[in-house]
Amino acid sequence: MSAGDPEGARDRTLAQIDANLEPSLARLFDLLRIPSISTQPDHAGDCRRAAGWLSDLLGGMGFDASVRETPGHPIVVAHDRSARHGPHVLFYGHYDVQPIDPLSLWDTAPFEPVVRNGAIIARGASDDKGQVMTFLEACRALREAEGELPVLVSIILEGEEESGGENLLPFLKANADELRADVALICDTGMVGHEIPAITTMLRGLVGEEIVISAADRDLHSGIFGNAARNPIHVLADIIAGLRDEAGRVTLPGFYDGVTDVPEAVRAAWNRIGLTDEAALGPVGLSIPAGERGYSALEQTWARPSCEVNGISGGYQEPGFKTVLPAKASAKISFRLVAGQEPERIRAAFRDYVRSRIPGDCAVEFRPHGGSPACAVPFDGAPLAATLRALGEEWGRPAVTIGSGGSIPVVGELQQALGMNALLVGFARDDDRIHSPNEKYDVDSFHRGIRSWARILHALAAI
Amino acid sequence: MSAGDPEGARDRTLAQIDANLEPSLARLFDLLRIPSISTQPDHAGDCRRAAGWLSDLLGGMGFDASVRETPGHPIVVAHDRSARHGPHVLFYGHYDVQPIDPLSLWDTAPFEPVVRNGAIIARGASDDKGQVMTFLEACRALREAEGELPVLVSIILEGEEESGGENLLPFLKANADELRADVALICDTGMVGHEIPAITTMLRGLVGEEIVISAADRDLHSGIFGNAARNPIHVLADIIAGLRDEAGRVTLPGFYDGVTDVPEAVRAAWNRIGLTDEAALGPVGLSIPAGERGYSALEQTWARPSCEVNGISGGYQEPGFKTVLPAKASAKISFRLVAGQEPERIRAAFRDYVRSRIPGDCAVEFRPHGGSPACAVPFDGAPLAATLRALGEEWGRPAVTIGSGGSIPVVGELQQALGMNALLVGFARDDDRIHSPNEKYDVDSFHRGIRSWARILHALAAI
Repeated sequence: MSAGDPEGARDRTLAQIDANLEPSLARLFDLLRIPSISTQPDHAGDCRRAAGWLSDLLGGMGFDASVRETPGHPIVVAHDRSARHGPHVLFYGHYDVQPIDPLSLWDTAPFEPVVRNGAIIARGASDDKGQVMTFLEACRALREAEGELPVLVSIILEGEEESGGENLLPFLKANADELRADVALICDTGMVGHEIPAITTMLRGLVGEEIVISAADRDLHSGIFGNAARNPIHVLADIIAGLRDEAGRVTLPGFYDGVTDVPEAVRAAWNRIGLTDEAALGPVGLSIPAGERGYSALEQTWARPSCEVNGISGGYQEPGFKTVLPAKASAKISFRLVAGQEPERIRAAFRDYVRSRIPGDCAVEFRPHGGSPACAVPFDGAPLAATLRALGEEWGRPAVTIGSGGSIPVVGELQQALGMNALLVGFARDDDRIHSPNEKYDVDSFHRGIRSWARILHALAAI
Repeated sequence: MSAGDPEGARDRTLAQIDANLEPSLARLFDLLRIPSISTQPDHAGDCRRAAGWLSDLLGGMGFDASVRETPGHPIVVAHDRSARHGPHVLFYGHYDVQPIDPLSLWDTAPFEPVVRNGAIIARGASDDKGQVMTFLEACRALREAEGELPVLVSIILEGEEESGGENLLPFLKANADELRADVALICDTGMVGHEIPAITTMLRGLVGEEIVISAADRDLHSGIFGNAARNPIHVLADIIAGLRDEAGRVTLPGFYDGVTDVPEAVRAAWNRIGLTDEAALGPVGLSIPAGERGYSALEQTWARPSCEVNGISGGYQEPGFKTVLPAKASAKISFRLVAGQEPERIRAAFRDYVRSRIPGDCAVEFRPHGGSPACAVPFDGAPLAATLRALGEEWGRPAVTIGSGGSIPVVGELQQALGMNALLVGFARDDDRIHSPNEKYDVDSFHRGIRSWARILHALAAI
């Protein structure tokens, strides 16, 4: 609990943030100028430079900051112990960025940030340097205006998020005592539309599985053998068609065991967002929700488990026609999971189902491609409520908890290594073009993002 | 009707054939030494040389023979009018051969024929030079032993059968009055096993169709959109799965209209062949007939219409995994047709069915890939019965009428241009390796093939 007049202190900080937007932007631009592309070996030095720059910045702000080695790109760790009370938060972000190709599609140089039409344009502007700096600039303003942070803050910034690096989890495990906190804060997600602040509390899990079905021991002429000899493409089509019923539900026995609907209040909040099925699907040229009947497109992707075929292959695929009966056919199939579903149980149910559909003289090979459970922050926790409230105050409209169909590995890794829940709060917008040419982050996202964090840390201090 | 003692005359001819096997083989070898690969332009001169060689051979045998020009390789036409009675037959064969690559897999030089273990080894030994020469050597022996042929014989030998040449049909049409006969004889097919003589009377037709299903206007991330956005692979799998019912029957409305079962006598003859489902499927590693219930594997491929997916493609097909929801998915689908089915009616029924399964916000593109009706020789014709009888006498066991799932375009073209039925009589064996390295034709096939034609022409003279 902050001493004295916490609201007055907070308002001084917000004023400080407003007054210092220009130097805040200048610092972000310095970071954006470092081409820290983690997946390209010739940028390894730039990754190290970005880590050093951040460590120096944090050290200058009063953090106990250091650049820590890993087998890959280094990790920045920093602690601020100025708070005399309050919970301990661990902030996570990443300083590495995606490659820039195709360079010809950029309107400006990717590592020479500019502001155009109210947007900061540069590789990493949104993902994730701009978002990281919202938190760091909030900490700076809090220290400058109030002399201390409202809560104990630790920060971890990694450099391999965009390159599938596997060094974070071992690092978290090896430094668990140092890094464990009451709650993790992650700034690598977005808002709903341009104005609705959001906390991503549900991340779907994934089970990936490839199946290769073999029939005859060679490709056959479909004129000579067609009808009599088994066609593995037909076997595969039957398997895929049988995976979902008329109502769009996955048919695997036990698939929905442990799956619960979101609370009615959350569903009502989602309905209030006004993201209709048409609004969700229209931008990609569709209009009819394809999935589970009885759920909106939003609910289908955020909160319902599903099954999709991500690739299928068999027989003759070149231009023209060849009357072949292939020896093999294959498909890559993924299941998105929600809380309550255990990946390996789903995988086993899928394999049982497939085996039950394989004719006696055919064979199936299973190739696993990853499995991770869903992550969910309990809807009833105090940090969540406090953060929602703080966001709502900044943006002038109620913040919502949302789901995400995609995966953010660090959330599960924090759970696994440190036993911590994470609140995913981000200010990216749908049109930020992350991973694409002309990536941008609105100055408004940056400015109000900083303000949001100041409010959030105060709110967390009060719980 | 041959005068005098037709059986005695025939037996003299058979003795003549036996006595002259060596010079018959020598002539075949001369033809095999000409590398008449029709699809390779640098062998055009060899094709012309083969045509000239055959024309000279036939001229020397007393035929009125000529090499006739086409826009491609020439066609040899010859007539023997020595017969004073009997029907008029038109014999068809082809002098061109397949390419020889991969040459490294040949044990001997492809165009230096040798006899090893009772087999003539050379490119074209079976397909089709060896088979063509069985007929020509039969005519030679008949002329030498009897002074005349038992029937009027015309011969047409083309040079583009292996290269998809499109010059035969126009040639047939342009020379219809010269070429039209009572029945066509084609020697380009095989026996059942090594010892059962066969006439191929049923050739399935084909409708090829490619469908491309489009959903979203771009590839989507299956985490973000999966479940809500339509996956064209699922649409495709549903379409394919729905094309055949539990009993293996094609579900298109009207698909079986006009389709009749083969006569019970034919079915009984097929059963007597002893080619069980296990024997038909075992060589390719299968054991369970996959097609229409209630029909043997033999009947399924020879006499029943069917549907096969020859290729399927969609989404991510490289090694590894990508959680993509593709914008498009496609399949190449073929229908094999039997007598009574009209290709364009089947294509229309298929398109109607597909359209009925395309969601309102998706699209389908149809790409036609050929359509040809089935060919069938009436089971009750006198030429068929006479030929079966003659074959049975030569081989010492009843000859059977069989079907073929593959297509032999000339059969339809003779029907179309000349209104003639064709009897497909051949002596190739399953292990002849046509189109492959070390192609062979058994000396026994060649010898008894010549004898078979002598008997057949006598039998046709007697109807």
